[in-house]
Amino acid sequence: MRHTLTIQFDCRDGRRAAAFWAEALGYRAFGSSGPYRSIVPPDGVIGPKLVFQEVAEPKTSKNRMHLDIDLDPGADLEAEVARLRALGATLASADPIAEEGMRWYVLRDPEGNEFCVVAA
Amino acid sequence: MRHTLTIQFDCRDGRRAAAFWAEALGYRAFGSSGPYRSIVPPDGVIGPKLVFQEVAEPKTSKNRMHLDIDLDPGADLEAEVARLRALGATLASADPIAEEGMRWYVLRDPEGNEFCVVAA
Repeated sequence: MRHTLTIQFDCRDGRRAAAFWAEALGYRAFGSSGPYRSIVPPDGVIGPKLVFQEVAEPKTSKNRMHLDIDLDPGADLEAEVARLRALGATLASADPIAEEGMRWYVLRDPEGNEFCVVAA
Repeated sequence: MRHTLTIQFDCRDGRRAAAFWAEALGYRAFGSSGPYRSIVPPDGVIGPKLVFQEVAEPKTSKNRMHLDIDLDPGADLEAEVARLRALGATLASADPIAEEGMRWYVLRDPEGNEFCVVAA
């Protein structure tokens, strides 16, 4: 491939957002530069880098782009949602959504960014 | 890893958005289900799945989350931007931005989603 993908988040508090997503995904800190703070997968795992950029403006509407955390088969969806809430996520859907053969919850990260936790 | 990451886009025209991003990233179609249309990396390449979901509402503000396409060292930034514009992207920054040792352009996909093309 001639490129790699990075996922960039605008944030009010980059340290908090990076810490949340590192714990959520099992990522590790990869340094910071200016307003940018990066996290990457652990050694031996391939996945996109996430970068958190501090910006002045707040979030004003539902994101047009969001992440799904797709759990491995057999994982406990409710336990994973509880773990993420303990890290600072909030529930956007009280009940799981069931559609297209999958079950998922909609949550928000500490910046208010919507994301889903999905069980096949 | 106990999970994988999927990147979800809300769209007005999922077919157009999926076609653009497949060409942009060298991805291939991975089928559709209900309002969802997926694209994945080519065989032998590991990367996040992208899913395009058709929704009724239009984009109303700058995304809080966006993708960076990080070019391999030595890649021609201007040529890649020209290729993406030929696929339907539009330039959001007329001149490249130079910061933190990198150069990049801000573009918009056919749905108006901001993304960056970055040369180290």
